[in-house]
Amino acid sequence: MNTNEQQQVVLTSRPSGIPQAEHFKVVRGPRPTLDDGEVLIRNIYLSVEPAMRGWVADEGNYSEPVAIGAVMRAFTTGQVVDSRHEDFVAGDYVTGLFGWQEYAAVDAATIIRKVSTERVPLSTSLGVLGLNGITAYFGLLESGQPVAGDTVVVSTAAGAVGSAVGQIAKLKGCKTIGITGGETKRRICLDEFGYDVAVDYKSAEFSEQLMQALDGGVDVYFDNTAGTISDAVLTRLNHKARVVICGTASISQWDPLPLGPRLNRQLLVARARIEGFLVLDYAQRYGEAVTELENWVAKGKLNYREDILDGIDQAPDSIAGLYRGDNMGKRLIQISQI
Amino acid sequence: MNTNEQQQVVLTSRPSGIPQAEHFKVVRGPRPTLDDGEVLIRNIYLSVEPAMRGWVADEGNYSEPVAIGAVMRAFTTGQVVDSRHEDFVAGDYVTGLFGWQEYAAVDAATIIRKVSTERVPLSTSLGVLGLNGITAYFGLLESGQPVAGDTVVVSTAAGAVGSAVGQIAKLKGCKTIGITGGETKRRICLDEFGYDVAVDYKSAEFSEQLMQALDGGVDVYFDNTAGTISDAVLTRLNHKARVVICGTASISQWDPLPLGPRLNRQLLVARARIEGFLVLDYAQRYGEAVTELENWVAKGKLNYREDILDGIDQAPDSIAGLYRGDNMGKRLIQISQI
Repeated sequence: MNTNEQQQVVLTSRPSGIPQAEHFKVVRGPRPTLDDGEVLIRNIYLSVEPAMRGWVADEGNYSEPVAIGAVMRAFTTGQVVDSRHEDFVAGDYVTGLFGWQEYAAVDAATIIRKVSTERVPLSTSLGVLGLNGITAYFGLLESGQPVAGDTVVVSTAAGAVGSAVGQIAKLKGCKTIGITGGETKRRICLDEFGYDVAVDYKSAEFSEQLMQALDGGVDVYFDNTAGTISDAVLTRLNHKARVVICGTASISQWDPLPLGPRLNRQLLVARARIEGFLVLDYAQRYGEAVTELENWVAKGKLNYREDILDGIDQAPDSIAGLYRGDNMGKRLIQISQI
Repeated sequence: MNTNEQQQVVLTSRPSGIPQAEHFKVVRGPRPTLDDGEVLIRNIYLSVEPAMRGWVADEGNYSEPVAIGAVMRAFTTGQVVDSRHEDFVAGDYVTGLFGWQEYAAVDAATIIRKVSTERVPLSTSLGVLGLNGITAYFGLLESGQPVAGDTVVVSTAAGAVGSAVGQIAKLKGCKTIGITGGETKRRICLDEFGYDVAVDYKSAEFSEQLMQALDGGVDVYFDNTAGTISDAVLTRLNHKARVVICGTASISQWDPLPLGPRLNRQLLVARARIEGFLVLDYAQRYGEAVTELENWVAKGKLNYREDILDGIDQAPDSIAGLYRGDNMGKRLIQISQI
């Protein structure tokens, strides 16, 4: 490939449900040049996340849909190779919304932060110290408001967000119950992420086991799935329970709105609360979360798993794989060396 | 009737839905005598309210079900006729949970408050200055958290709670949209309760008119109905909208749970909140609400309507009548003279 070129992953058609490999294509595009105030970044890790389904959907969402033909929107971490902004020099590691591509020239103001590799690996900047960990941090602490002694239930408990939620809840003195798919992930929940109880929603005894686990009721439910699993949890809300709606992984279509049990009576009797959470609302406070999360990781108090794919050609199918449950931990794609 | 006797309304069977006349009976019981620390009250006004459906239901609720054969639980206002407690003397007007009966001997500690008739009529103690007004006050201000300029939508907008919610929201500088049943109530919403817009859910053009009214979105939805009307309102939530679940008048059965659209996506996109509200949680702060509500009523800033039935024989059918929409304003039964 010509050094004026680079590989990029573009959205070629709009999926009606979960984005599949066929909706993306790896193409050759121009390598960008720099204007004043800009920084040229060589991407090392590309992030893959469930929220990408929403980013490419046509329906109303919290961000503009990625345009057909455009480079796929994605958080990435890379190294500065050239800078025309005084705050950055070649060699700095940085993270931001730089897209599924080899190189990006960005306005320095759009860089989320410089990343230090002194205490933790670079890849954590996209997972436990990236939006996933930050989502867990603010979603649990600000919306969920756990108090020591509370029972905190987490769906997708072994996932990039859920595993951090469960561990932060433990650090705050809560009892944690994780819901996950498969015996392997259930064991990981118990052994690596310290859940007090973990339940496998693929098990034939799931309903029974879940109800037994929820015998003392639920004070905080951190929900990444929606659907029938959540319906069951919501029948056990304690007085003044808080439900954090962080994701809806189990629902593949929102048009027309799928039906489920009406919750009014449960909310009224328990005086409980359900709240939608989006980490972008906390953008001004990311630093606060990263500092605390990095301390926990460096001290071994916060475990994480990563699932690192090799090479940009893995990108098109990578979102579909998340929804198939292929990954164990935060999914990344490494496209160049550190 | 013997002066040792009194009339009482007892629950004779447990309704599976809305309590009807056949579920109650007016019987003769003993007139109570006083123990130390007790107060004998002659009831003047009996309250009738939608929540009574829950009080007589067998299913889980926030209070013990009224027992079969027991006097119907109810808020009432009456006059002290004899007292063996130093804080009360004959002639005092008092309000509390004294039941659908002519006389009650109660522990003085269970009296909610003494009622003054200096500035406002006695009957207001059960409506706009009673649990209805207090519900509107804390439900709107504490759970709904309206800010000047917000759009506040109220269902059962002409009702005892709803009419106060709409007016308090106006006093706080909000735009108010009321949803009510029938053209008469719609006019009352506009003319007496000051709603900026009022929509009749019985009208053939309801959906269209509602969507037009909600064009600018909803910041606070104070919901007394649940069901399809609420479903429509919930499609228009603004960023950080607050939904107060105060009642569920449109749903007659909760077992099994009725189905409705899943709300996760709407809550997530808007980062909105739905919260169950029960006024009993604010029992320690009722005085604060009554003081402010009484000032507003006395100054003509807070209007109210009452629907006063005559005589205890009206009690058995009075709850069913509420659900039929027979009443215009707070429903009371007057059973003796002031």
